[in-house]
Amino acid sequence: MTSTLKARLTARETLEVLFNPRSVAIIGASTNPAKLSGRPLSNLQRSQYSGEVFVVNPRVEHINGVRSYPGIDKIPSPVDVAFIVVPAEQAVDAALAAAHAGAKAAIIGVSGFAESGDDRGRDLQSRLTRIAAETGMRIVGPNTNGIYNAVAGLSLGYNSAHGEDIPAGSISIVSHSGAMLSVFANRLKAAGVGLSKFVAVGNESDLDMLDYFDYLVDDSATETIALLMESIADGRRFKEIAARASLKHKRIAVLKLGQSAEGAQATAAHSSRLAGSARSYEALFAQLGIASVTTPEALIASAALASQTSPQPGSGTGLGIITYSGAASSIAADSASNAGLPLVAFGAETMSVLDSVPRSAPITNPLDIGGVGGVEHSEQVFSAISGDQDVRLVLVYAHVLQTTQQRRAVFEALETSRSNSAKPHVVLAPGGLTDDEIRWLAEADVPYYTDTAVCFAALASYWRWVDTRDLGNGQFTAPAENAVLTSLLEAVSGVTLSEHDSLNVLDAASLPTVERSYCARLEDVGSAAEAMGYPVVLKAIVEGIAHKSDLGLVEVGINSAEELAAAAGRLRENPAASSAVGYLVERMMASDLEVIAGVTNEPGLGQFLVFGLGGILAEAMDSISLVPLPASRQQIGAVLSQSRLGILLASERWRHRETAEQLLDALTNLADLAEAAGDRIAAIDVNPLSISSAGVTAVDALVILAGQLDAS
Amino acid sequence: MTSTLKARLTARETLEVLFNPRSVAIIGASTNPAKLSGRPLSNLQRSQYSGEVFVVNPRVEHINGVRSYPGIDKIPSPVDVAFIVVPAEQAVDAALAAAHAGAKAAIIGVSGFAESGDDRGRDLQSRLTRIAAETGMRIVGPNTNGIYNAVAGLSLGYNSAHGEDIPAGSISIVSHSGAMLSVFANRLKAAGVGLSKFVAVGNESDLDMLDYFDYLVDDSATETIALLMESIADGRRFKEIAARASLKHKRIAVLKLGQSAEGAQATAAHSSRLAGSARSYEALFAQLGIASVTTPEALIASAALASQTSPQPGSGTGLGIITYSGAASSIAADSASNAGLPLVAFGAETMSVLDSVPRSAPITNPLDIGGVGGVEHSEQVFSAISGDQDVRLVLVYAHVLQTTQQRRAVFEALETSRSNSAKPHVVLAPGGLTDDEIRWLAEADVPYYTDTAVCFAALASYWRWVDTRDLGNGQFTAPAENAVLTSLLEAVSGVTLSEHDSLNVLDAASLPTVERSYCARLEDVGSAAEAMGYPVVLKAIVEGIAHKSDLGLVEVGINSAEELAAAAGRLRENPAASSAVGYLVERMMASDLEVIAGVTNEPGLGQFLVFGLGGILAEAMDSISLVPLPASRQQIGAVLSQSRLGILLASERWRHRETAEQLLDALTNLADLAEAAGDRIAAIDVNPLSISSAGVTAVDALVILAGQLDAS
Repeated sequence: MTSTLKARLTARETLEVLFNPRSVAIIGASTNPAKLSGRPLSNLQRSQYSGEVFVVNPRVEHINGVRSYPGIDKIPSPVDVAFIVVPAEQAVDAALAAAHAGAKAAIIGVSGFAESGDDRGRDLQSRLTRIAAETGMRIVGPNTNGIYNAVAGLSLGYNSAHGEDIPAGSISIVSHSGAMLSVFANRLKAAGVGLSKFVAVGNESDLDMLDYFDYLVDDSATETIALLMESIADGRRFKEIAARASLKHKRIAVLKLGQSAEGAQATAAHSSRLAGSARSYEALFAQLGIASVTTPEALIASAALASQTSPQPGSGTGLGIITYSGAASSIAADSASNAGLPLVAFGAETMSVLDSVPRSAPITNPLDIGGVGGVEHSEQVFSAISGDQDVRLVLVYAHVLQTTQQRRAVFEALETSRSNSAKPHVVLAPGGLTDDEIRWLAEADVPYYTDTAVCFAALASYWRWVDTRDLGNGQFTAPAENAVLTSLLEAVSGVTLSEHDSLNVLDAASLPTVERSYCARLEDVGSAAEAMGYPVVLKAIVEGIAHKSDLGLVEVGINSAEELAAAAGRLRENPAASSAVGYLVERMMASDLEVIAGVTNEPGLGQFLVFGLGGILAEAMDSISLVPLPASRQQIGAVLSQSRLGILLASERWRHRETAEQLLDALTNLADLAEAAGDRIAAIDVNPLSISSAGVTAVDALVILAGQLDAS
Repeated sequence: MTSTLKARLTARETLEVLFNPRSVAIIGASTNPAKLSGRPLSNLQRSQYSGEVFVVNPRVEHINGVRSYPGIDKIPSPVDVAFIVVPAEQAVDAALAAAHAGAKAAIIGVSGFAESGDDRGRDLQSRLTRIAAETGMRIVGPNTNGIYNAVAGLSLGYNSAHGEDIPAGSISIVSHSGAMLSVFANRLKAAGVGLSKFVAVGNESDLDMLDYFDYLVDDSATETIALLMESIADGRRFKEIAARASLKHKRIAVLKLGQSAEGAQATAAHSSRLAGSARSYEALFAQLGIASVTTPEALIASAALASQTSPQPGSGTGLGIITYSGAASSIAADSASNAGLPLVAFGAETMSVLDSVPRSAPITNPLDIGGVGGVEHSEQVFSAISGDQDVRLVLVYAHVLQTTQQRRAVFEALETSRSNSAKPHVVLAPGGLTDDEIRWLAEADVPYYTDTAVCFAALASYWRWVDTRDLGNGQFTAPAENAVLTSLLEAVSGVTLSEHDSLNVLDAASLPTVERSYCARLEDVGSAAEAMGYPVVLKAIVEGIAHKSDLGLVEVGINSAEELAAAAGRLRENPAASSAVGYLVERMMASDLEVIAGVTNEPGLGQFLVFGLGGILAEAMDSISLVPLPASRQQIGAVLSQSRLGILLASERWRHRETAEQLLDALTNLADLAEAAGDRIAAIDVNPLSISSAGVTAVDALVILAGQLDAS
């Protein structure tokens, strides 16, 4: 067989064909529909797919009425998509054959590749990658269970849900797990919303999660995108795609796997160790306006709520909650508080309406209609609350009321309120609803939840989408060229810069650094200290040493010439100081608060600014915040003000209130430094960044350069 | 009508009659079963109740076949329980009539009493309280919707669930909300477990939540008690009842309303303001081994899990999780981590079994049977994991598998594993289960959940019950008499003790306090400072002033006689110091860490020890822990070691490791002080408790006495 290299389709062109193929061939289809390799055909035949279907199985002539061929090259018509279910070893050859036969895409629906963790599997997978690169045929998987296009009626795979009709809708799902499709499908059905497209990305030998994500952002049949994600390979591309999704008002929800796994990196930079992978992802999602959830049910509930709502600009800030009992009001308020969702203080107009109906209880939010208005006045109550300008969404916490008449009255009020308002109304009913109530809600397209956690997870997603609707605001603009910094970084040697060089880098980026004097020889520190004035700190500079204190290279609290001489004597005796390339005499700073700040690089995701409480509090308080870089002063300020550190600096108890702005300046300069230095810098540690009445001062620093590990 | 005062039944005797009445009269029953006042009769008739039923309605002769009387006094047979549904104003007279007619208990099933917030309602309710006290008839409510005894087939009330058969079981529910019964009933049904007794306690004009709780602990038909609680009126009694429940191995779950409400008290003691009501309740529940949840579905799921399990001593520490996919393993691990539930590291024996089955993935916990063993070897996998000595409970995270055969194989393995092991097995299936799986689980009495949050809330409850199974361990023993302290507290005057007196109180309780010298006159501070040595702090003592610093009454960092003279001069000029009753010269302490500690009194609940990070970190870090008092050193140590403060003191980064024990000593002495002083003390503030290389030292203190506010 001769191989003719065709013009490589872009990922987007391939995906258009993949989800809407004119013809599909199942390579290795079994005659037994109970077997994994028999299911794709039976599922495909069961689905509404109207294109041509072929199977390749040399041992039979037909399978369930479909003509079987001994090889894909024997199929007389063009094959758009090959679904390959022969064992891994043969699947590679089958993929090559499919490419030669002109298939645009192959789905490798078997395991035994890189996920097995052995060399054989990794080798097979790299052969697939090569086939895609060399032939131009694009590959889904391996180790995938298939795809689904509910809009086109195409079921191509072997999950139990591939054997079911999933109603068509506007939600598309890209998943690192194929097994979860059955969970997603059942939850979509229960929520009364439909699927557009599903793909289990498998091992991503060729097409990866971002290719599918990118395609779906421009797919007119997709309004909402749900991602079940192990990790992102290319943070920069992810940001670009997410930003485009935001411009198109497509809403994204993510379930990131492995949140509890230790994400700490093996790095000398303390701030990088504190940051961790899970927090990096969360910070990235927050900056991009992507909702982040922790369970599959919350993922689908969030996507469903997105597909059922379209928030308008200026559409309120808080929840308006209506309940049927005092206990429900308390529970709803507690749940909102736990989810970080604010409750509206009703405006004067709302209050005046609520005050006009009969009541036996005070007017509060959540509002118990048992105490205010009763079933009889529920229409006035609902409309007043949905009409309140600060209310973003109306939540009804429902029990089963005694009579059909009562239930109808309340649900009619709900329906009227919803019809007259652009704001979403949702129902939470942990005790379930009656059949009539479920029917009314379905007719009115009102989402309802029987579980509190799922409800509030979906509401929190909605809040993130609305709060970050205009991502353009406060966007980053690149800082001016910094020639001093550039030449400084070119001049330094080694990977781990000395404290002296590191502090000079911070100086070049306009961070406030501690007053200090560099001495080449230990004999010179006395006059340097005299010139500066006591108390001082004396440090020996040794190349490649990040943790000076542990080695006795730092002498603090030196109050006089005598104490300095004694400290210098100890350094002279210290073997660790024998290779010192110089000495620093620094002003001794009295801190009221020690902050740790830095820049970290999360593999795949890119650079992040890191900050939090430092010193003895760094680990125990676990107060670290991250900002994906590049970031504007405004973006950094938003994260700082919501952090424990920011809350502390804004509190009554903190005397140096002006230092909050100074810290924000320093953090912004640190972020700009990272941006200006780009790939040159692997990590920065400013530890401590001392805060006192003297302002904000970098007292120690560590800059780790990138790339030189390989070069040197 | 003449009133004959009968012998008052104890609450327990009354409740025995209330839940098992030989006869019931409904006072004010309507002929219309759709009306609230018509529903109790129709619900009662619908239920399996076999005792006598009467109604009182002067306008009719019969209601639905039941003879109606013009008054309860006209009923010819004795009435055990009167259910009163006439309007509030008449309900009081009806209650009195019921008492005179010899009823043992009356349920006041109408509102319009104290809950209305007006004087009229409060007056009506106090008349009910008086009737109970004077006649001996006990009262349920008012503002209750009734009771339910599913074991006896008694439905007496008008919630929608009163009109349904709730299956009988061993779970009893005491609730401040009647409306929640329908939620509870539906959730019980869905969980496949049954109800013993339900009571909506209403406004507790006579019988209160603790009376019902107390009764149920000794009720042989009740194994598990669920409480939906607004507040506790008597913390001491609550503790006694909970301790008795623990001895009887009856498990308690609580949904406490109002967790997010601001619980801060208006008090001068900073530590008391930091403590808050919600945290006090949580600390109390933790100490008593009571599970605490935040939603009604978690309350019922917890109670159901309790009723389906009986943990044995020494029954493991962590979760063993089995899944069908890698994604499910990740999600389960993240959820366990979020819920604070540990995952077991499998033992050697377990590993050797798991290593003997075919596998394509590493052995981990959670374990994906798709990668280890497959469906074919699931029995070996399940049995190995449930047999692991460290596994306390086996969680199966299930998807819908493709074929009935596969599903059956896995569920047979589950059933075998459960039968051969005393350990609970539960299933979490967010995508739902097939009908056959649901049937198998019901037959095997294996709990299953379709929602992750509910599942892990129930598991967290189970963990609390097992972890606190033997509450006798580490229990408090009263400290020895402290004559010095007693005489000191008798000698002092006023409500807010001066710093001088407050520190002396701490001294008497053997807390380490700052070195200091009391001077009656400002002229004497110089020689006191000379004797002590600089640096010192100078404070003016003014009666009744808690916040000295704000008024300029504290001069810190005095390094010499000159500086002392200047400081004294400023005090002389300070009008706030004009009424000083003396001065303190204190040693200036250098703190490495400032802790705030104290004793607070939560209304109803009693005394708590409070501690956390102090100084500028107190509010911003929100790191406050509470221990209900009295408490042993061991109990305090357990809370300290899990707190952020305890984690900090145990961390590598903290140099003075010995201070953790010293802090625990000081906190224990503070707790003993509170116990010895008893009701005399309203609050204690030790702020800061300074920690440094010099150890733990109380630098400032504030003792607030109780009761004298009224007396003086």
